[in-house]
Amino acid sequence: MRMVDIIENKRNGEELSTEEIRFFIQGYTEGSIPDYQVSSLMMAIYFQDMNDRERADLTMAMVESGDQIDLSGIEGVKVDKHSTGGVGDTTTLSLAAMVAACGVPVAKMSGRGLGHTGGTIDKLEAIQGFHVELTTDQFMKQVNDIGTAVVGQSGNLTPADKKLYALRDVTGTVPSIPLIASSIMSKKIAAGADAIVLDVKTGDGAFMKTFEDAQSLAHAMVQIGNNVGRNTMAIISDMSQPLGFAIGNALEVKEAIDTLKGQGPEDLMELCYTLGSQMVVLGGKATTIEAARNLLREVIANGQALEVFKKFIVAQGGDASVVDNPSLLPQAKYQIELPALESGYVAKIEADDVGVAAMLLGAGRATKESTIDLSVGLVLQKKVGDQVEAGESLVTIHTNSEDITEVKEKLYQHIVISKEKVEAPTLIKQVITD
Amino acid sequence: MRMVDIIENKRNGEELSTEEIRFFIQGYTEGSIPDYQVSSLMMAIYFQDMNDRERADLTMAMVESGDQIDLSGIEGVKVDKHSTGGVGDTTTLSLAAMVAACGVPVAKMSGRGLGHTGGTIDKLEAIQGFHVELTTDQFMKQVNDIGTAVVGQSGNLTPADKKLYALRDVTGTVPSIPLIASSIMSKKIAAGADAIVLDVKTGDGAFMKTFEDAQSLAHAMVQIGNNVGRNTMAIISDMSQPLGFAIGNALEVKEAIDTLKGQGPEDLMELCYTLGSQMVVLGGKATTIEAARNLLREVIANGQALEVFKKFIVAQGGDASVVDNPSLLPQAKYQIELPALESGYVAKIEADDVGVAAMLLGAGRATKESTIDLSVGLVLQKKVGDQVEAGESLVTIHTNSEDITEVKEKLYQHIVISKEKVEAPTLIKQVITD
Repeated sequence: MRMVDIIENKRNGEELSTEEIRFFIQGYTEGSIPDYQVSSLMMAIYFQDMNDRERADLTMAMVESGDQIDLSGIEGVKVDKHSTGGVGDTTTLSLAAMVAACGVPVAKMSGRGLGHTGGTIDKLEAIQGFHVELTTDQFMKQVNDIGTAVVGQSGNLTPADKKLYALRDVTGTVPSIPLIASSIMSKKIAAGADAIVLDVKTGDGAFMKTFEDAQSLAHAMVQIGNNVGRNTMAIISDMSQPLGFAIGNALEVKEAIDTLKGQGPEDLMELCYTLGSQMVVLGGKATTIEAARNLLREVIANGQALEVFKKFIVAQGGDASVVDNPSLLPQAKYQIELPALESGYVAKIEADDVGVAAMLLGAGRATKESTIDLSVGLVLQKKVGDQVEAGESLVTIHTNSEDITEVKEKLYQHIVISKEKVEAPTLIKQVITD
Repeated sequence: MRMVDIIENKRNGEELSTEEIRFFIQGYTEGSIPDYQVSSLMMAIYFQDMNDRERADLTMAMVESGDQIDLSGIEGVKVDKHSTGGVGDTTTLSLAAMVAACGVPVAKMSGRGLGHTGGTIDKLEAIQGFHVELTTDQFMKQVNDIGTAVVGQSGNLTPADKKLYALRDVTGTVPSIPLIASSIMSKKIAAGADAIVLDVKTGDGAFMKTFEDAQSLAHAMVQIGNNVGRNTMAIISDMSQPLGFAIGNALEVKEAIDTLKGQGPEDLMELCYTLGSQMVVLGGKATTIEAARNLLREVIANGQALEVFKKFIVAQGGDASVVDNPSLLPQAKYQIELPALESGYVAKIEADDVGVAAMLLGAGRATKESTIDLSVGLVLQKKVGDQVEAGESLVTIHTNSEDITEVKEKLYQHIVISKEKVEAPTLIKQVITD
């Protein structure tokens, strides 16, 4: 088999065989196939696409390129959740406890990550003493005992995906549905998921800017999951404005706790119920989405979800008293309000730019070496559609520096107030259950 | 400027600016832009094409990537000819002398080359003593004195094209009209041509298998030439069967001499007149194609073309007595006839495969290290459309080995005889003068 023939086949619009896909992924991982052949194949895939069979084969070839986590020591159906990323997305923290409280094990491998705020692990480390260094045995035992655990990424998972992603980034081949879908799905499958729930974001603050692109990606991933024996569901949710109110690490932990108490922001609560009910159904603890949602409401109302969260913190060395007393979380020195300059309706809170404002405060990493200030961030006082009087606060800025001129300018630039009444955007744009 | 933006622009179907094209060609030549970015751009160009302006800019950027031959010391319009390559193509040898005899200087830089037979230089070296090691001054003086000279390739011409071509070969990006056209044109322009005549071959034995592809390529190259100030004309000619009768180095030299005596094969004579008249017009020695053709007929009829060829041989150290006595050329030990196995009409002489048969005899190089046997080759006794009786010779095989079973088998396999009458293919399929 020759790589140049594989490239030409795809270029000519032909279907690549399972063997051809395995050959190039294996060869690329081992280094026997060079970058320059793979980048030209990626561009050919960009133009010629891949069918369902090829996408499934590509996903599994990437899974098989490295280590695969064996979660068979955990009882039940291990359901993982993936979000394509956005601003102020605190979902994972609350969701894990909610779903675990319904009896579905959530064994999460998580990362730190670059961006507006830290990753799930950074956020959890805002809790005094919390750590993610668990052995495999500890990790599995904790999930069996409590229902959930979070461990830092370890092992050599999907090395093919890592190489491909770095290459695609510099060769103009990022925005290709089969390549994005197989990248995401291969990581979830290698991490041991039996079933997967996907939150595909759309809007200014999301990777998929248009609803149509988000739809294509969601369908592609659901199809891959189902074709490789991992039941998969997805939703498409709005990311034109930040999710919830809080953007920042400790601030988001507090918001997650509020959510587990049933007092979270309306959009965040709704998203947790929607994603959670898909997870509970896939985990086999309810037969309908409706029944699953009722179960989730119950564990919020009766405090069981909050109880799981406390146990989870304790099990991983953290101080669970933050749950009852969130003021124990790192606090920024200053809380500065950003007053509206005019009266009207909030028309836009541009997620990406507001995220950048949070990063300027120190809430996120610009490079791998940056350190995060866990205490800082933003709390939105208004969301799109809300009425606002001139002088009323739009945002509370949690900062350790008094000089925040740049942050304020950025926020004023990207929070748009209109004289006309504005509709709040629909949060859940589509639910895909098969 | 970032290469990834250039790739994305082209991927999205946008036009690349002159600066963007220069940036990537220069960066690639210098090594600051890696293969993997260039191969993905090449694939994007394959799918999105380039407009006339981009093609001209790409050509000139490649010309400027290395040395450029300055032929200004030669009086008159230097017209170069390029053929996209085929089997038994002896045109260059005769054409240079014919056109020079009409007063158009032909200063040819030539190579050896891989393939069924040698390149122009290999063929000329079949003449005892002939050499192509001329200094630039000798080269130009000879063209001024005699009208023509052939020199071996020297200098660092179009290094960008060399790198690109090697990369395209292994990344599935060879068959792209803008890339093929700019590759050919850049080499001719860097070699100092003021005007260019192109012979684009089509058919089984050619790089462009279909007439439509040959047309696209011819138009693309004429457009480029005219856009960069090099008057360019082209023809599209048949390469479904070998050109002329001879395939082999010394054999083709003899055929070229026959042609200069007005006794060459009909198709080869016609091709020389057609290409020659374009060269004479571009060289400013005739105002119409018709007048140019008359001029060429004249220099053949009155022996002036043959006279130029003799002077050319002498000037480059060769023994010009071969012209009057071609038996002085290297002779193979055996001449074996290949009898027709049945009566009928010759329906096919598959150029590519017949070329391979000549290579098996030793007439061509399979690798750069191979040595060529100048004496061996094939002389077709029949061409497509000819009637043949069983037992009549189809081909005379000139060989130094008695065991030619494989060659015979190959020839029988690819020379097809039909019971039905067959039309001879049209040689000159299209003439493009602007």
